[in-house]
Amino acid sequence: MTTAFIAHPLDPITPPEISAAVHILRLGVSPASIRLKVVDLLESPKSNVLSWISDDTVVIERKAKIYYHVLGSPSLWKAIVNITGSTLEIAEELPDVQGPVDYWEWERVHDACNSHPEVLAEIAKLKLPPNAKVINDPWAYGTDNAQERRRLFQCYMYIVLSEDPEANHYSLPAPFSPVFDAHTLELCWIDRLPLGLGAEAEETQPWNPVKPVEYSAGILGKDFFRKDLKPLRISQPQGPSFAVTGQCISWQKWKFHLGWNLREGPVLNNVSYDGRSLFYRVSMSEMTVPYGDPRSPYHRKQAFDLGDSGFGLTSNTLSLGCDCLGHIRYFDGWRCSSDGQPVLMKNVVCMHEVDQGIGWKHTNFRNGQASIVRDRQLLIQCTATVANYEYILAFVLDQAANLHVEVKATGIVSTMPSNIDVHHPWGTTVAPRVLAANHQHLFNVRVDPALDGQHNSVVYEDCVPIGDSDKTLDPFGCAFRTDTTTITQPGGYDLDLTKSRVYKIINPSRINRISGKPVGYKLHAMASQMLMMGPSTFNYKRGVFASKPIWITKYRDDELYAAGEFTNQSREDTGLAIWSERKESVDNEDVVLWHTFGLTHVTRPEDFPVMPAEKMTISLKPTSFFETNPSNDVPRSNQNDNRSTEAQDEGNSADVKPHI
Amino acid sequence: MTTAFIAHPLDPITPPEISAAVHILRLGVSPASIRLKVVDLLESPKSNVLSWISDDTVVIERKAKIYYHVLGSPSLWKAIVNITGSTLEIAEELPDVQGPVDYWEWERVHDACNSHPEVLAEIAKLKLPPNAKVINDPWAYGTDNAQERRRLFQCYMYIVLSEDPEANHYSLPAPFSPVFDAHTLELCWIDRLPLGLGAEAEETQPWNPVKPVEYSAGILGKDFFRKDLKPLRISQPQGPSFAVTGQCISWQKWKFHLGWNLREGPVLNNVSYDGRSLFYRVSMSEMTVPYGDPRSPYHRKQAFDLGDSGFGLTSNTLSLGCDCLGHIRYFDGWRCSSDGQPVLMKNVVCMHEVDQGIGWKHTNFRNGQASIVRDRQLLIQCTATVANYEYILAFVLDQAANLHVEVKATGIVSTMPSNIDVHHPWGTTVAPRVLAANHQHLFNVRVDPALDGQHNSVVYEDCVPIGDSDKTLDPFGCAFRTDTTTITQPGGYDLDLTKSRVYKIINPSRINRISGKPVGYKLHAMASQMLMMGPSTFNYKRGVFASKPIWITKYRDDELYAAGEFTNQSREDTGLAIWSERKESVDNEDVVLWHTFGLTHVTRPEDFPVMPAEKMTISLKPTSFFETNPSNDVPRSNQNDNRSTEAQDEGNSADVKPHI
Repeated sequence: MTTAFIAHPLDPITPPEISAAVHILRLGVSPASIRLKVVDLLESPKSNVLSWISDDTVVIERKAKIYYHVLGSPSLWKAIVNITGSTLEIAEELPDVQGPVDYWEWERVHDACNSHPEVLAEIAKLKLPPNAKVINDPWAYGTDNAQERRRLFQCYMYIVLSEDPEANHYSLPAPFSPVFDAHTLELCWIDRLPLGLGAEAEETQPWNPVKPVEYSAGILGKDFFRKDLKPLRISQPQGPSFAVTGQCISWQKWKFHLGWNLREGPVLNNVSYDGRSLFYRVSMSEMTVPYGDPRSPYHRKQAFDLGDSGFGLTSNTLSLGCDCLGHIRYFDGWRCSSDGQPVLMKNVVCMHEVDQGIGWKHTNFRNGQASIVRDRQLLIQCTATVANYEYILAFVLDQAANLHVEVKATGIVSTMPSNIDVHHPWGTTVAPRVLAANHQHLFNVRVDPALDGQHNSVVYEDCVPIGDSDKTLDPFGCAFRTDTTTITQPGGYDLDLTKSRVYKIINPSRINRISGKPVGYKLHAMASQMLMMGPSTFNYKRGVFASKPIWITKYRDDELYAAGEFTNQSREDTGLAIWSERKESVDNEDVVLWHTFGLTHVTRPEDFPVMPAEKMTISLKPTSFFETNPSNDVPRSNQNDNRSTEAQDEGNSADVKPHI
Repeated sequence: MTTAFIAHPLDPITPPEISAAVHILRLGVSPASIRLKVVDLLESPKSNVLSWISDDTVVIERKAKIYYHVLGSPSLWKAIVNITGSTLEIAEELPDVQGPVDYWEWERVHDACNSHPEVLAEIAKLKLPPNAKVINDPWAYGTDNAQERRRLFQCYMYIVLSEDPEANHYSLPAPFSPVFDAHTLELCWIDRLPLGLGAEAEETQPWNPVKPVEYSAGILGKDFFRKDLKPLRISQPQGPSFAVTGQCISWQKWKFHLGWNLREGPVLNNVSYDGRSLFYRVSMSEMTVPYGDPRSPYHRKQAFDLGDSGFGLTSNTLSLGCDCLGHIRYFDGWRCSSDGQPVLMKNVVCMHEVDQGIGWKHTNFRNGQASIVRDRQLLIQCTATVANYEYILAFVLDQAANLHVEVKATGIVSTMPSNIDVHHPWGTTVAPRVLAANHQHLFNVRVDPALDGQHNSVVYEDCVPIGDSDKTLDPFGCAFRTDTTTITQPGGYDLDLTKSRVYKIINPSRINRISGKPVGYKLHAMASQMLMMGPSTFNYKRGVFASKPIWITKYRDDELYAAGEFTNQSREDTGLAIWSERKESVDNEDVVLWHTFGLTHVTRPEDFPVMPAEKMTISLKPTSFFETNPSNDVPRSNQNDNRSTEAQDEGNSADVKPHI
């Protein structure tokens, strides 16, 4: 079997590889009886990739990881196919886990729900106007029972009053939720949703008409929009500053390989700056979104949007001039249809340069001479739509050798029906009869460092006053020192803002010639409230990773996902909860740093109909890695390149009178 | 006395007003004997401004606040001049405080130091090469003695080896620091600086040649710079979206008055959105920078860069295409020379629009239809150069009715001479023989709210799990509630990340029709390590405001500066430390919220020669202030306006081979 030219061992799976992998699997199992769920790259072991980097004549075997179903079996099956060797290495039944949601089953559940007689009977009770219809979002069921082995979807129902393609049905949630078995397509039961303060729900009543809150430009009409927003354009007349070959990218002393997969979306591999190795792999690893409304069935709402759905699989096709402003490079992805065909996912990642204001500046005040460098950044971005909600994930590189991971939370908050004039303790009324429950978004970013080599350590540094402890040393009481603690054991670790605690990845074998300190990168963590649900809850057991901000593990191949490989209806975290318990040294070893951060979202009417993006940023910044400011050699900001213009009189028409 | 046309009572002082104020002062005191230090607007009492807003035929008296010196007196004098009424209202001696640093005295101290025989003798001991010269930065002296009443400057000395106007003398600190009396211009003593680990300093030794680390493009030469940065241009072919009359600005439903003064730089007054009052005044109020090196004389280094120097007075003249990219509107400022002449400070504030990526997005995944709004922002910015260091202060408005205050810390870290190969516990060696001591930057932003009127309250909201406290209410343990506490007394208050504590300004008399909650704005605080120096230190006594993140006071006219009016050589915080102790109600009153935040700067070689900007952002965001997303009416992002371009093959030349 020949495969397409692969420029780098971690290149995303190609269409011929998808076809080949499916072909090899079918040779090894009964071909008619299988349905494909996920066909994606199984990344080569790190040691092999490093061998290839030393000597690119080394042949790297390309392998696929396949999740699939076998007709008549409720189990998930998993195969490992060696595409290069044309062999099926593993094909095994996994009766105790649930795979992620796929489009094929999602549509079948959706249609089964929307056509089931009992559901239709329930809809009939709403006595909707003739033009109305009801649609549903099948949600990953969550977990509230350790014995449950069915593959379940909880279908949340919404009323649609308009033919407009962007009519906001989330503004019209219906008061019942059927639960379906995805394998049998049987209706298991219908949950009636509580509408009042208590957990009790009543029989479905005729719908009480209410006007939905819309965001569709078609429905809102031209007059609705503000008229005074003038275009702002970004151009790069000499082209971009980056260079691309396949998935290998160089930009402003950075080099990296852009990976992509269905679960994580974009991934940065083999990241270096100015010829020095920084990170083997940086990725968004997992997230969990537990809801704080205890009224059944809402207690089950806990999405793991990477493990259950996938940031790659749910990535939008990005559109020039709408999603992306400036000079844009797009990257495609590929998934596999249920019958084994490669399916193009067009423009799922965009890459472009951004100006982020002043990068550094100094003015010699004696003579007014100023040097200014602007903060040019390279942004690699995707948007994942997980039903109602959007996550915009970006990796951002800058010229001072900083690497930022940005997440914007936007889209439509999950809505629940409510009686009029009831204000719940569990959330906020965001539209008439619509409750948006409070919830948490807890992300985990995985950083596999390789600072000047694979053997690194993680330390944390606290800033601690000398205070009264040594009056001779500190007679005026102004001194503070930095206390450094090396992490020797895997585990979950805390931040401490009262000490400005900073976690640093260092290479203890390389000392900075100027500072005398080991070369390092520090994590600018986002200190956040951790998971609020306690150790006895399924929320916690499934998402232990969300209970601590910092995790350290020793590297092993295939340990990529913070909550483990299978999160859908999971009963426990099989990721960091397990890996961090191993008794092994992580000091001057191949170590991995994981950072959990996020936000507790207390909802607002301002978050509806679509929520203004809430941005979260974490950063990795050099500390004694370089001998001077890495952006000292960036050409100074100048009008010849920038061609700025000065606003003079054109704006001189403001009403003088303030409104305050 | 006629004055220039004033469009708004809070307009910055004008040149005719400066001249008039000085004239009136001179009529009242012995004219030949005074030297002007500061002539600036004394803002009208709030009640008067509000009267004018209700009825702009009301005459508002314009007044000036003047700091000056009287020949032969070591005291600061302060005058209040009623410009409108041509009267000198107050002229008083303040023997117990020191005024801020002014350019005139700074130059005289600098010159006195650089020509004093004892200093020259000390310089001679350095045995510098013939082309070298020595310059000095007179620093505000700080405080280590409650009895000190002289006006002192500690002069830090640096060696200059090059005629280049941007030669980095901060890379060559000399090992002694003369202290001068600014009134007598007498040398008080010379501090020898400790070069080793201990506090002891030795006699000045011949200079041991070392190469400075430079940032000057002239010195570094053309070949030093990276060659692959392509221009990125921002244009607004239809002009800006803002409108301006004098200092009154409207942009995207926002209206505000742009104040400016020597102490704070730009200030936002009378801020409203969509015709509704939000804030009476938002300003950077104060900052303090204590250094953590206990070795004398470094224990005295504690800058108050607003109170001691002034963000307005030290603001750079901004330059089109260098500081500012895009379509820029500039604003000037005026100061007063020591002999009473108005001095133009050109382009000290810039205002322009910025695209900050996606503002919100939702894709209807059923049909792929997407609505995208970009995050257009209006940025009002200045750069203050305080000797070696730069602060870039920006107020940022967006279309979702959020107001952000951004500070970028950049410039050159304060340097100290060090013996070779000595690495100090108090900082980092950032260049050969150069120590940059660790320090804190603690800012205070003052928010004077006026949400739908002047009577507001501040509450804090904690997110708290129900946990095991009520198993009936929360059988699955997933619930959390929001606990709201109203602040009734002035004082300093804490953040609590473990509870996602959020401070909200509310108007308790106005209830949001949708959510049933009072209209409000929440503070997205920057949780930071507070001042590390304890209550017995001068660092603490002078900057009590830096010991707590949140302060609440009841509004009084003239209470603008967190550490009090006079910070130079101050012995105590006469601002929040006092005002927050008053026993008075702040619930549903004219309340003021103050937020202290910042960073503990553990220095890096990467911070030298000029430090990559470290950005800090705090935000004020509506919460139940509006009934829907305030940016729902922003025209959707579209290619017709944006004219983005797609990068195709032009970048296809990256080396495939990774460096890792």
